[in-house]
Amino acid sequence: MQIIRFEDSTGQTGFAALQNGAAFEIEGDIFGAHRVSEREVGAHRVLAPLLPSTILCIGLNYRRHAEESGAKVPQFPVVFMKPPSSVQSPGEPILLPTHLASAEVDYECELAVVIGRGPDGEICKNVSRDRALDYVLGYTCANDVSARDWQIKRGGGQWCRGKSFDTFCPLGPVLVTRDEIPNPNALAIKTILNGETVQDWNTNDMIFDVPSLIEFLSGSTTLPPGTVILTGTPHGVGMARQPPLWLKDGDRVTVEIEGIGSLTNSVQNEAA
Amino acid sequence: MQIIRFEDSTGQTGFAALQNGAAFEIEGDIFGAHRVSEREVGAHRVLAPLLPSTILCIGLNYRRHAEESGAKVPQFPVVFMKPPSSVQSPGEPILLPTHLASAEVDYECELAVVIGRGPDGEICKNVSRDRALDYVLGYTCANDVSARDWQIKRGGGQWCRGKSFDTFCPLGPVLVTRDEIPNPNALAIKTILNGETVQDWNTNDMIFDVPSLIEFLSGSTTLPPGTVILTGTPHGVGMARQPPLWLKDGDRVTVEIEGIGSLTNSVQNEAA
Repeated sequence: MQIIRFEDSTGQTGFAALQNGAAFEIEGDIFGAHRVSEREVGAHRVLAPLLPSTILCIGLNYRRHAEESGAKVPQFPVVFMKPPSSVQSPGEPILLPTHLASAEVDYECELAVVIGRGPDGEICKNVSRDRALDYVLGYTCANDVSARDWQIKRGGGQWCRGKSFDTFCPLGPVLVTRDEIPNPNALAIKTILNGETVQDWNTNDMIFDVPSLIEFLSGSTTLPPGTVILTGTPHGVGMARQPPLWLKDGDRVTVEIEGIGSLTNSVQNEAA
Repeated sequence: MQIIRFEDSTGQTGFAALQNGAAFEIEGDIFGAHRVSEREVGAHRVLAPLLPSTILCIGLNYRRHAEESGAKVPQFPVVFMKPPSSVQSPGEPILLPTHLASAEVDYECELAVVIGRGPDGEICKNVSRDRALDYVLGYTCANDVSARDWQIKRGGGQWCRGKSFDTFCPLGPVLVTRDEIPNPNALAIKTILNGETVQDWNTNDMIFDVPSLIEFLSGSTTLPPGTVILTGTPHGVGMARQPPLWLKDGDRVTVEIEGIGSLTNSVQNEAA
């Protein structure tokens, strides 16, 4: 199923399933009991497909990106987080921070995994690798927007501050349920910046694949329904280019993942 | 006002104000319109005083702790995060992870700042240092429990994984509103482990004080009501001792902050 979250012309929000080019309202809880109604909805605006409870992110999870970053291939997944307040909807702008100003804002295309519940409604905790995909509700596209100055030069070694600005986590547009993606580690993934492809790789290059990440992150740790895992970005980020390529006011950036969709956002300076 | 969140004997939860040794139910939203009713409640269990939307944490924010950690005094606040799923209530156990096993679990007493709304209901974003405390709902005690092996040796430089296990963020028992704490940077703060004081210092040693942290964290970034800021720990952590002092099954650990309260948790091994 292809799920969107939408706002209609009256400002009401809801979930809908895309079928034959139309959107049909979903009744109930997408993380629990729900059904697709016959009521067609007018999706005035397509929103980020969920409001995550937690956003867990994996750094340096593609071999060639670890290389371009000058980092060793990690022994264990490298975990950081973004706050839910950083989520942005498709089509809405990525805002370049001007109050806590950044001059080095970068793109990162990422496969986002949306955690749901297990086959009998179980919460995801202490899940083994071979059962891990049973706990996935679905997948969507993410842009792990990163202010490299605050992430690296002024982060004191911790990445969270530079990854946490408002609008720094575009998600969407479609949440594709796991039955449509038999193998999340065999998908072409790319970033297109102003019409030029700047990242172009495949999720099969992940150092820790999706089941391994779920096993690791759920170890002694609850992943409530609505947890989103950003699984890392391939090589080609702006920071690693000569000269570096930073996002600027007026840009247009698209994350595209095979079988999932295409997430486009403009780039604007934050209002003073 | 002293606010608790409680569960009554029927399992219902609510907020109450402590007055003259009794608890009176709070009607409404503690982050918006609310009033203290005359209905006395039976607080069967005192819970963590809120379910945070986001937990932002500051590392190395006390001068002597930065020294004991062998770190430089940071130029900017060092930010990491804990997931809301890590929150634990007062009196409930801290669980030593056995699935993703840790042998180096440590305590950290911290002043927790609970963000509310501004004087006219504004959301906390781009708030200047001199207005910052207007956005504080109140303060509580926190224990930033940390698995040093996963935080440091196996974290790939990022601290989030080792700080994120279930039960690793005890909070409470009381949320003291800001009117009762004229200066959050003049409070004695300590950790008592099995009756022995192991951290004993004052929040006046913070490198970045509470107003500075709010200005920094809210720069180009929304801090929704219910955001909790853990403001760092003073020296005396188990990791920095010779030999190191790790939490073990059967321990009892208390975080005590002047004017705020005393947060006690037992320590147990996670069930296999």
